[in-house]
Amino acid sequence: MPRFRLDIEYDGGAYAGWQRQADQPSVQQAIEQAIARFCGDVVSLRGAGRTDAGVHATGQVAHADLTKGWTGDKVRDAVNAHLQMQGERVSILKATPVPDTFDARFSALGRHYLYRILNRRAPAALEAGKVWWVPKRLDAQAMHEAAQVLVGRHDFTTFRSTQCQAASPVRTLARLDVVRAGDLIEISASARSFLHNQVRSMVGSLKRVGDGAWTTADLKEALEARNRAACGQVAPPDGLFLTGVDYPEESIRE
Amino acid sequence: MPRFRLDIEYDGGAYAGWQRQADQPSVQQAIEQAIARFCGDVVSLRGAGRTDAGVHATGQVAHADLTKGWTGDKVRDAVNAHLQMQGERVSILKATPVPDTFDARFSALGRHYLYRILNRRAPAALEAGKVWWVPKRLDAQAMHEAAQVLVGRHDFTTFRSTQCQAASPVRTLARLDVVRAGDLIEISASARSFLHNQVRSMVGSLKRVGDGAWTTADLKEALEARNRAACGQVAPPDGLFLTGVDYPEESIRE
Repeated sequence: MPRFRLDIEYDGGAYAGWQRQADQPSVQQAIEQAIARFCGDVVSLRGAGRTDAGVHATGQVAHADLTKGWTGDKVRDAVNAHLQMQGERVSILKATPVPDTFDARFSALGRHYLYRILNRRAPAALEAGKVWWVPKRLDAQAMHEAAQVLVGRHDFTTFRSTQCQAASPVRTLARLDVVRAGDLIEISASARSFLHNQVRSMVGSLKRVGDGAWTTADLKEALEARNRAACGQVAPPDGLFLTGVDYPEESIRE
Repeated sequence: MPRFRLDIEYDGGAYAGWQRQADQPSVQQAIEQAIARFCGDVVSLRGAGRTDAGVHATGQVAHADLTKGWTGDKVRDAVNAHLQMQGERVSILKATPVPDTFDARFSALGRHYLYRILNRRAPAALEAGKVWWVPKRLDAQAMHEAAQVLVGRHDFTTFRSTQCQAASPVRTLARLDVVRAGDLIEISASARSFLHNQVRSMVGSLKRVGDGAWTTADLKEALEARNRAACGQVAPPDGLFLTGVDYPEESIRE
């Protein structure tokens, strides 16, 4: 069966998360239904990142096996037409035929997330639901410097949800950059894979550094505690975006 | 009575427009109600731009006379608290005490608008309601070049709504720039004042240039026709943002 890679954008505020659930709207289900309406195929999508309720994506990747060898453009346009008709806040950016060795989840070499903090006295109006509003002034430079203690291979027990089902709490964080752009603070995180709630947990703790409650040493101590109780506030889902997924060249060329 | 200048951001998608209306939600009413809840004052706001239903603002300006001489920060924070409590998609970016000669509408020397076109095959998911989605590839450079025939002092009858109540159709367009940034086409328009629907009418006609249906000469002909029927499609409100208003220095210094 021809396999297609789908690159996907969505507004997570409208969904209980990526993953299909019995009684709540999910991004996965929205796309699966649109595919069924388009060509009748009942598929089970596999996504690279199982984003939580309220978390957005500009570059989620999933794969699906269809019965017919449609062109990528046809799949993209037809699935989008059905998503639009159903009023879904999901858009297929690209659909690409891939070898059937490609697996959106297991072939992934890297995942990239962006977290956006709106750091100003006035609440978000236009960006409501797409940023974490923090009225108190944050020191982005201090946050960036502290963030570097989290980069590298560590036991991230402090920064993972107690619900996290990963076998090991050890991950290698490739990048954690904090940059201010006007009223926005943008935090970019990259790793081969992340633990459940890891980015939001790290951001919540970095916010403590930014507002002066924590020093870099406090953040380091929290990491080394390997104890969920040592984590700062978990940042809300609103500001989080899955922005891209990396794959080995050979896995995506047909 | 102490006069305050309010700099305002809003998501126009939630409102029937800036101006108060008997039976529909408006931005003006939302702010007037929040002011009444804050200090009991029943005010009538005057805004610099009477944006239509669905049109957004990152830099609308209005003024209001309050009974007490609050600090600007107090007014901003208190009005925002009440706007948030009511679930409004409106935020006061700044509140500034100004001389009572300041009039948000009549003191304005310039108004700035931004229009955003999402120009890609995939519909907008994250930016739905905040862009005009145009799937057909547009030539932004051709749009920019054609736009220059509209810059300057002209009779803009072709580009104003038949509902427009301005005494004269003559306006001086100071700037009309078209720039592509990835999948986004951003159109920046500046003038002392605009006619009703002028920006959206100009954008709709520029889109015809971008997709090859019109040449620069066709646009010039449409302008010179001074005939509403010569206008291209009026672009939808979704992509339009009032981004700022200019005032003479002396009018805003107390």
